[in-house]
Amino acid sequence: MKPSIPKGTRDFSPAEMAKRNYIFGTIREVFGLFGYNPIETPAMENLSTLMGKYGEEGDKLLFKILNSGDFLRGVDRNLIEEENCTRLAPQLCEKGLRYDLTVPFARYVVQHRNELQLPFKRYQIQPVWRADRPQKGRYREFYQCDADVVGSDSLINEIELLQLIDEVFRRLKIRIILKLNNRKVLAGIAELIGAPEKIIDITVAIDKIDKIGIDNVNAELLERGLSQEAVDALQPILKISGTLAERLAQLETLLAPSEIGSLGVKELREVTEGVEALGLTAELDLDVSLARGLNYYTGTIIEVKAKDVEIGSITGGGRYDNLTGVFGMPGLSGVGISFGADRIYDVLNALDLYPAEARTATQVMFVNFGTAEAAASMKMMKELRANGIAVELYPDAAKMKKQMTYANATGVPFVAMVGESEMAEGKMALKNMTTGEQVTVTPAEAAAIVS
Amino acid sequence: MKPSIPKGTRDFSPAEMAKRNYIFGTIREVFGLFGYNPIETPAMENLSTLMGKYGEEGDKLLFKILNSGDFLRGVDRNLIEEENCTRLAPQLCEKGLRYDLTVPFARYVVQHRNELQLPFKRYQIQPVWRADRPQKGRYREFYQCDADVVGSDSLINEIELLQLIDEVFRRLKIRIILKLNNRKVLAGIAELIGAPEKIIDITVAIDKIDKIGIDNVNAELLERGLSQEAVDALQPILKISGTLAERLAQLETLLAPSEIGSLGVKELREVTEGVEALGLTAELDLDVSLARGLNYYTGTIIEVKAKDVEIGSITGGGRYDNLTGVFGMPGLSGVGISFGADRIYDVLNALDLYPAEARTATQVMFVNFGTAEAAASMKMMKELRANGIAVELYPDAAKMKKQMTYANATGVPFVAMVGESEMAEGKMALKNMTTGEQVTVTPAEAAAIVS
Repeated sequence: MKPSIPKGTRDFSPAEMAKRNYIFGTIREVFGLFGYNPIETPAMENLSTLMGKYGEEGDKLLFKILNSGDFLRGVDRNLIEEENCTRLAPQLCEKGLRYDLTVPFARYVVQHRNELQLPFKRYQIQPVWRADRPQKGRYREFYQCDADVVGSDSLINEIELLQLIDEVFRRLKIRIILKLNNRKVLAGIAELIGAPEKIIDITVAIDKIDKIGIDNVNAELLERGLSQEAVDALQPILKISGTLAERLAQLETLLAPSEIGSLGVKELREVTEGVEALGLTAELDLDVSLARGLNYYTGTIIEVKAKDVEIGSITGGGRYDNLTGVFGMPGLSGVGISFGADRIYDVLNALDLYPAEARTATQVMFVNFGTAEAAASMKMMKELRANGIAVELYPDAAKMKKQMTYANATGVPFVAMVGESEMAEGKMALKNMTTGEQVTVTPAEAAAIVS
Repeated sequence: MKPSIPKGTRDFSPAEMAKRNYIFGTIREVFGLFGYNPIETPAMENLSTLMGKYGEEGDKLLFKILNSGDFLRGVDRNLIEEENCTRLAPQLCEKGLRYDLTVPFARYVVQHRNELQLPFKRYQIQPVWRADRPQKGRYREFYQCDADVVGSDSLINEIELLQLIDEVFRRLKIRIILKLNNRKVLAGIAELIGAPEKIIDITVAIDKIDKIGIDNVNAELLERGLSQEAVDALQPILKISGTLAERLAQLETLLAPSEIGSLGVKELREVTEGVEALGLTAELDLDVSLARGLNYYTGTIIEVKAKDVEIGSITGGGRYDNLTGVFGMPGLSGVGISFGADRIYDVLNALDLYPAEARTATQVMFVNFGTAEAAASMKMMKELRANGIAVELYPDAAKMKKQMTYANATGVPFVAMVGESEMAEGKMALKNMTTGEQVTVTPAEAAAIVS
């Protein structure tokens, strides 16, 4: 019986790894250029750290690790009798796999508060695990790439993070729309129309305006319990139009009666003007229906969509006022973003945007003609490696056809042959596998050709 | 109550990450130069893949993941009554965390056998988890860095891997002894002295010769059930001496009566002569007591010790004849090595061998003097980043003292100040934090100074 892996998990082959490392490498490098430094946290956290942070549904989706040894000791036998798995799990398990990078980061900040210099800028690129039902594009193990800064209220952080996002996608050659909103604008709208408690219903409905049209949105709002007056009051906001600056101006006028709404517009203006002064490759957009993580974000909300591929959000983020409060350290504001590596991978595949470096690894394969030739080849390989060229020798003196099949299958761009005559000259026959061209050269010359 | 992490696990701060990335980056680059390509496998494997591969003790040390949902369904209630946790665990859990990278690699090869081109050279740098009792230098989560080639019997693979090890430690500037042995030599010795079933006892005892002396080793061998004749027959082997070549020659003569022993000596000679012809930085040594993973290795055995730090093996490996047999794919020979990243980290710390790049990340911090100055700073930062310089702006216009405290604490090598006069000139005051020297320069000039 062929072995397999748990559903929702994946193996990554060398070809897939090259593509993934291209994405992670690009993100990592840009994180660094913007002064974000890496941390790593353990895959396992105490369940007490994780439980209750992702809602009741989230608690169920946590992978829990069975205690070692005599895990039945002290377990309430009544719960077993009742088959109460929900209450039994925390008795059988002290630890769980991390579900995202945000809660471990909050835990890290509080645990190491005395060693940290605030503001603290960190990035973290690590896998997370969720016991979700696996489906196309949704995995039980996947990577998150997060950058956050905590301990600073300044909107300069937002301006820097938007530039950072812009630079990552500029390098990846993915055309994007950078959508902005502000939680305070949403609060202002809800306040303005006299339905502050309906803020979620309002944003969910507004979000569908492009798909179902304004009339259907209004019908849905009434269905969700908004009064006709509230729906009427909302209409001017749904109808703002024009350039980003024009829409901001209209929003400013409409939200003037609301203090929190006005503050939101002011923040949006400061952030958009700040990034526009510096110049962006991406298209910047205002989207008052944008409400990701509404219960969590308190200021700026950020979402990125690919222009040329229909795939949903490929990056998102926002400002939160109280990251660490749940661990007993209140009042620490922060703002962060998270790149969706798996979706970015799909976008790059769909648009075939990988550079040549992300397609191959080994640059030269030496053919093995026997003991003496192999020894001579290895001497030349040492020189190529000293020049940073990745090379390998086919380990067995197999038939030429077999060795060339290997070279073709692994996609190596050059093949080197050191036979008797080349050995005598201290040279190799170097064949370009794309053009078929072949030259007889010294190792130094080969290094120059390959690199 | 301050949050914490499970015992035996670790957080890694930016300073620690910089050091770790220096080690992993060096190993990864050299793996690539030798034609090894990366793969990754999931953290979770089916328990059926992991169980029975590491012995009875290993099964207990596997972290097992509680099944989701109604995990009590179908569980044998008698086992609960009996508190038989050992037999109960596999009923409650289908999955476990990987314990090493070797078994997942074997599973990968068999699962993807139809997509793979043999010989298959892969490397893998990922964490593994073991429910060991935590102690100094032993963790429940730690990284392994493995390179293996399967599908080739050629000793060229050994010669390449020894060069690879040599190159990694040459780059890390750690002086090492590269110890070699061959399982066939050990089998030959056991055969020669008429005690083939005592091969483990013999190697365990021989291993202590430096510590306890030859007389005590002999006494221990008798205690372990060897006959006086066997111990006598062993003496000439314990007494081989001289250079590597001399010892190989003596071993060859002594093991001449044993076919397998002679084959082992021949392999050792071919490998040592092969690497010596290419030149090594490391000291190469023959160690007939070397027996790591005896039940596993079938040919070459490799172990690396640091010369200047007492810490045990920092890298090891060897050849195995049947990696994938347990998954129903027999006859696939391979050879592999594994770098011990945590011990290498300790060695580099002990010898203080980290280069400057591994100590800092952000290169320039811009002081924040207020809105206009910050805007001007961000323009200059964009130019520096385009030149590959990692920069950040202190996000708040805080007191100078606070901003400089941050700069000192994060260890940034340069601080840039853009005040009114610098703004007017399009320049910055750039201060070298080590020398205290300060110059007024354009962004282009600053980029040249910093890089």
